[in-house]
Amino acid sequence: MLITLTTDFGTDSPYVAQMKAVILAMQPAAAIVDITHAIGPQNILQGAAVVQDTAPWFPPNTIHVAVVDPGVGTARRLLLAPIGQHLCLAPDNGLLSGLMDDTPPTAVFSLENSHFWRPTVSPTFHGRDILAPVAAHLSRGVLPHELGPPIDDWQRLPGLQPQVAACEIRGQIVAIDAFGNLLTNLRRRDFPTELDFRGVSIRIGDHRLVGLATTYGDHAPGTPLALFGSSTRLELACVNGSAARHFAAHSGDRVEVNW
Amino acid sequence: MLITLTTDFGTDSPYVAQMKAVILAMQPAAAIVDITHAIGPQNILQGAAVVQDTAPWFPPNTIHVAVVDPGVGTARRLLLAPIGQHLCLAPDNGLLSGLMDDTPPTAVFSLENSHFWRPTVSPTFHGRDILAPVAAHLSRGVLPHELGPPIDDWQRLPGLQPQVAACEIRGQIVAIDAFGNLLTNLRRRDFPTELDFRGVSIRIGDHRLVGLATTYGDHAPGTPLALFGSSTRLELACVNGSAARHFAAHSGDRVEVNW
Amino acid sequence: MLITLTTDFGTDSPYVAQMKAVILAMQPAAAIVDITHAIGPQNILQGAAVVQDTAPWFPPNTIHVAVVDPGVGTARRLLLAPIGQHLCLAPDNGLLSGLMDDTPPTAVFSLENSHFWRPTVSPTFHGRDILAPVAAHLSRGVLPHELGPPIDDWQRLPGLQPQVAACEIRGQIVAIDAFGNLLTNLRRRDFPTELDFRGVSIRIGDHRLVGLATTYGDHAPGTPLALFGSSTRLELACVNGSAARHFAAHSGDRVEVNW
Repeated sequence: MLITLTTDFGTDSPYVAQMKAVILAMQPAAAIVDITHAIGPQNILQGAAVVQDTAPWFPPNTIHVAVVDPGVGTARRLLLAPIGQHLCLAPDNGLLSGLMDDTPPTAVFSLENSHFWRPTVSPTFHGRDILAPVAAHLSRGVLPHELGPPIDDWQRLPGLQPQVAACEIRGQIVAIDAFGNLLTNLRRRDFPTELDFRGVSIRIGDHRLVGLATTYGDHAPGTPLALFGSSTRLELACVNGSAARHFAAHSGDRVEVNW
Repeated sequence: MLITLTTDFGTDSPYVAQMKAVILAMQPAAAIVDITHAIGPQNILQGAAVVQDTAPWFPPNTIHVAVVDPGVGTARRLLLAPIGQHLCLAPDNGLLSGLMDDTPPTAVFSLENSHFWRPTVSPTFHGRDILAPVAAHLSRGVLPHELGPPIDDWQRLPGLQPQVAACEIRGQIVAIDAFGNLLTNLRRRDFPTELDFRGVSIRIGDHRLVGLATTYGDHAPGTPLALFGSSTRLELACVNGSAARHFAAHSGDRVEVNW
Repeated sequence: MLITLTTDFGTDSPYVAQMKAVILAMQPAAAIVDITHAIGPQNILQGAAVVQDTAPWFPPNTIHVAVVDPGVGTARRLLLAPIGQHLCLAPDNGLLSGLMDDTPPTAVFSLENSHFWRPTVSPTFHGRDILAPVAAHLSRGVLPHELGPPIDDWQRLPGLQPQVAACEIRGQIVAIDAFGNLLTNLRRRDFPTELDFRGVSIRIGDHRLVGLATTYGDHAPGTPLALFGSSTRLELACVNGSAARHFAAHSGDRVEVNW
């Protein structure tokens, strides 16, 4: 009965507890795990990358609820996507694109059967009034196709895939962690299997790095470096320091690698 | 065995974990949910509004522990209030006023029976040394009247109620969320049932808005708007932006609505 | 099956959820409690003080996992230390020094048996790939000595112990809480039992305070004061205000007490 939550409500927000209350009232056996509530406001790209990196670590039958939802209360749909052995709930705005790129869903359903929602739905909080009760119903055995019709025209998120050319890959920073490490949308699988990374050149803004390190402590404190991090994303880091500060970098900044 | 925690300890604080440790040592079956630990330091008004909006979502028999307690260790009392089907614990400083305004408690007890406290009580942390063990005892079946005598002179918090006149309601900002939405102490129930909101005028600082929106995405990005949010509070928001920044507003700022 | 987590990953970080996913996949009955994830990046001293103050509150058989690990992926070891009735896991960099100072471990083991790790170990995230699965194995009954050889040359952290002289104790600020209270490495036990604290002089920067208060609300708002806080650490505080701001103080600043 594992249910995860990923939102842009802010780590300080009581809105998350309202979702948990709705879930626990319907499913007292739920174990609810916060993935993060610090997705940047309306930052669907960051949310998609975080869900892509984190959701797959959970055991089979986990239900993932993701809410980065600038269109709440408008005509945008809400989705249920069975992905691998998980069930994923999110608005139809590309938030599940990363997961779906890695593991195409067998089907996707549009949540339209209001029988499984709270009786009153606030136009500003579908996470609490639709997604939370639907997650609880799923944990109680309701089947995906009961929740609404299957669809195949869900939104894809273009920015999550890097541009891959013969000797170059171009992408962007999709998240910055608390250490100031810059996580990009370039993953190990985007590069040629046999590439010798000692010779690659990584460009960010006016800075250039050559070659990859293995881990953060590989060089003297303060040294900027690039490496494949724990989710196989290319990261820019700074030994015992902040790459975000060193490179004066922001989410969305371009990163290019060539060889 | 659901127990919630609301404090001003800060989201980063290990003090919360000390309370959880005390509860779990006495009640291993407790499921503890954080409502928020980001109430502004000593901001009883914000704490009261957050508890008022969030606690009622939890299922029957939930125990709520709220700690915004600038008077810790002084002569102020600690309270247990059965409210609806919940048991609420807090210092006697108005922190439960919002809940009590909405659902008057059947009785209120002053926690004076030290038998149910930790054997040693730090003068600076009654949350850990009194409220946490009392919550655990309640979850184990101790009855409210065992904890101390009933009282009827608990503190009320004046600032939580707006000033209601014939064609005007005046209140203030009681919380600002991570999106920069401004939550006020004006709730839907404070307005006439039949009021046509298309004509209302909302004033904050030197700004004036006319009419209410239904949801955040109703207008073009950047547009400031007012709406009743998911807890029926009047909110000032900014489409895909921050109303706090747009209006240069702070907690406590006056908001007036007339028609 | 209580497992706690203390890290410097940041309260906003999804890395914590990856550790929880690994634990829950192996041990569905685990109840995981966050102590804090807001240890300053690479701030081993703060981490050691927080773990020292918080871990002992948990019931017997709790497993504590602490990750402040600037040396991740380098030659530094990872440790398991049975301390009191708890099992503690951390990198070998002094992070457990505070706990060990208070309660010497009966033995300390170096985690070298990769049978209990994840099959693939990222060089940048041993918390997820080594410590999390080891914690899950311990909760399932694996014995400490199965995890690796006993060692006796683990790292001690010098900065956690104050310098004690005849009529003076010198130490430093080891943590600052959300109220702006300054927590030092001077604890009640470091002072003579019979000392009359009314006469002590506390110096921080160019400021001097005389005598100790009992609790935060003992004086008028804005008054700076010193007291022994809820973990018996000497704290500098400011009634309803921030001592960090009042004293313009930072983590690591010197604090001297003489009498």
